[in-house]
Amino acid sequence: MPYFDHNATTPLSPAAREIWLRASEEHWHNPSSPYRDAAKARIRLEGAHERVAEYLGSTKERIVFTSGATESAHAVLQHWGRTFAPGAKIAVNPTEHPCVLAAANLAFGERIVWLPVDRDGVVTVQAVREVVSGGQISGVIVMAANNETGALQPWAEIARICRAARIQYFCDAAQWLGKLPASGFSDVDWLIASGHKFGAPKGVGFIKLAEQSESFSTQPGGGQESGHRGGTENLASSWALATALGEAEQKKVFLEGERLRWREEFERSLIASLPGARIVAKDAERLWNTVSAILPTGENHRWVTRLDKRGFQVSTGSACASGKEGPSHVLAAMGVSAEESKRVIRVSAGWETTLEDWRGLAAALAEVAKEMRGAAESVTAVP
Amino acid sequence: MPYFDHNATTPLSPAAREIWLRASEEHWHNPSSPYRDAAKARIRLEGAHERVAEYLGSTKERIVFTSGATESAHAVLQHWGRTFAPGAKIAVNPTEHPCVLAAANLAFGERIVWLPVDRDGVVTVQAVREVVSGGQISGVIVMAANNETGALQPWAEIARICRAARIQYFCDAAQWLGKLPASGFSDVDWLIASGHKFGAPKGVGFIKLAEQSESFSTQPGGGQESGHRGGTENLASSWALATALGEAEQKKVFLEGERLRWREEFERSLIASLPGARIVAKDAERLWNTVSAILPTGENHRWVTRLDKRGFQVSTGSACASGKEGPSHVLAAMGVSAEESKRVIRVSAGWETTLEDWRGLAAALAEVAKEMRGAAESVTAVP
Repeated sequence: MPYFDHNATTPLSPAAREIWLRASEEHWHNPSSPYRDAAKARIRLEGAHERVAEYLGSTKERIVFTSGATESAHAVLQHWGRTFAPGAKIAVNPTEHPCVLAAANLAFGERIVWLPVDRDGVVTVQAVREVVSGGQISGVIVMAANNETGALQPWAEIARICRAARIQYFCDAAQWLGKLPASGFSDVDWLIASGHKFGAPKGVGFIKLAEQSESFSTQPGGGQESGHRGGTENLASSWALATALGEAEQKKVFLEGERLRWREEFERSLIASLPGARIVAKDAERLWNTVSAILPTGENHRWVTRLDKRGFQVSTGSACASGKEGPSHVLAAMGVSAEESKRVIRVSAGWETTLEDWRGLAAALAEVAKEMRGAAESVTAVP
Repeated sequence: MPYFDHNATTPLSPAAREIWLRASEEHWHNPSSPYRDAAKARIRLEGAHERVAEYLGSTKERIVFTSGATESAHAVLQHWGRTFAPGAKIAVNPTEHPCVLAAANLAFGERIVWLPVDRDGVVTVQAVREVVSGGQISGVIVMAANNETGALQPWAEIARICRAARIQYFCDAAQWLGKLPASGFSDVDWLIASGHKFGAPKGVGFIKLAEQSESFSTQPGGGQESGHRGGTENLASSWALATALGEAEQKKVFLEGERLRWREEFERSLIASLPGARIVAKDAERLWNTVSAILPTGENHRWVTRLDKRGFQVSTGSACASGKEGPSHVLAAMGVSAEESKRVIRVSAGWETTLEDWRGLAAALAEVAKEMRGAAESVTAVP
């Protein structure tokens, strides 16, 4: 069944599965225990840190494994809240993931300055430069790629601006890593990611700490993760995460160009067969895997259900928000109306998605459109 | 290789492994997504909540899956800190796990009243009654079973006293669950546990919320876990946890009596072959699996290394504390001197540990004692 909801989660990759099982068979001992098998687990855990650090151009001491991006976001923002000067303000992109917005709100509340975004939901380099030059800001939060639209943010330039101004930069790379190269993030101070977005098991993610963050501590307990995070380390999942990231980095990201062409072909088909449909963040550079579209008619849940029956799994928006009432804050920030928001579907492919899958989805959308028009006409035809 | 460090962590149980793999194959979809396969994952997740709730005499809405006991402890204590009256005090058992102490300190700091413990590290019912009757306390923290000594706390009576006084009771059951029956915990307001202590994967645990805790929220993000905890749910590990707990509840806990006799036989052998050795918390009711012993001579690391070479994996104390300098706070609270603390080993069996394993360990300890005496004599003999 063609799965087009990879931004919500991905299936466990065979390589990650194999490593998880191997760790669970051979290295299940507590890395903090005092015998040789525990030391072996400790060495494997260090290896996982090293490997993730390598892809990000960092060092193993600065990688802290966590339970995922949500925990990571809260841990970093709480650290900012504790260590920034009293009254410090932060500048935040309004199209961040809900967990980052929630964490920023808890830690800074009224002390958030919202960055303006263009109609594609993208923060401009100029806007960051201005807010930073004002001298009132201690930290900047702009994600790498948006989960709902796939729009890429100019994080590399933002990192340079923040570094030059000695302002901390926090980047949620949950949707970028595994899809686009990790290189370049060495200039980002604080980075978070989630393994299940790129083939690792659920329940594992990490934080890349900023330089000189030896004091960073979240959920203290037994001194694990070099004292940065308490709790028995989840070696199996951390090692699987490093493996899945490595697989994406070493092989898959070279396919990006081809996959981008497949996505573009799909977008053209969609626009051709659904007059009145519109691609969200159309003019932005976007992830090769993501299409967010405002459909011409009918609520998105009806489309999703009909596509599901035809064997295509797509989403109404982010999985985190799909159970909720109310329009997406991302679309609202881009000026999409509440009424239009109800007609948005999100399509997100994976590396294993084929051109035939994309073409099949385009054909299924055309069929559903016809069906919905038919249903609308027959409703209209009833006297 | 006989493994005697189950209080640090346990191997993944075959049943938990099977369920983890099944979930990863069949139900890896994001439970928040809007198609049928996601709904199936949602139903499985609900099933995991239900099953854990059932063993604890609670309801599925009150079970929140987390990344483990450390996260759980911090989440509950932060909730207490936010929701208790300003200036509220809590009464805490000083032999709690380091993560509970750290969480209590972060949330209440100077507003902690330390409960007295007897020489076995056990809080008396009388002490709880007194502190509660003073009217100055809003919450009580006493664990179910101690991780270092295995000593059981009178949690059932404490729960009744707190309930009668309308004071919140928080119980860390990480070392109890999976080893002794879960029934009876329905009277405990807040309970936390960790899956990897009873055969589930690492990186998953849970909180049992108190009644009327609808407002409970930790790491908010996408509204998961009925709004109690953000972050894509880790169905595979949560389901595996429910399975592992079920296995222990339905079968293993009936073996407790026999296992207690094995432990007692081991203790008699140890005392007989190591004159001057002493069992910690000797007179307390203790877990059937745990023996903490002060050895007559030589630092504990030397014993651990020599036992490891003979194929027996034991610990110097809690895994969480073993990397640290300084004596155990648990032993210190019981009046064990810093010098004696350096001679403590912890032995913790599992359900798969056999009587032969226990006897083998007793024999190995006697051998090591002989070897160490020989080494000490030969050192003494050097002019």
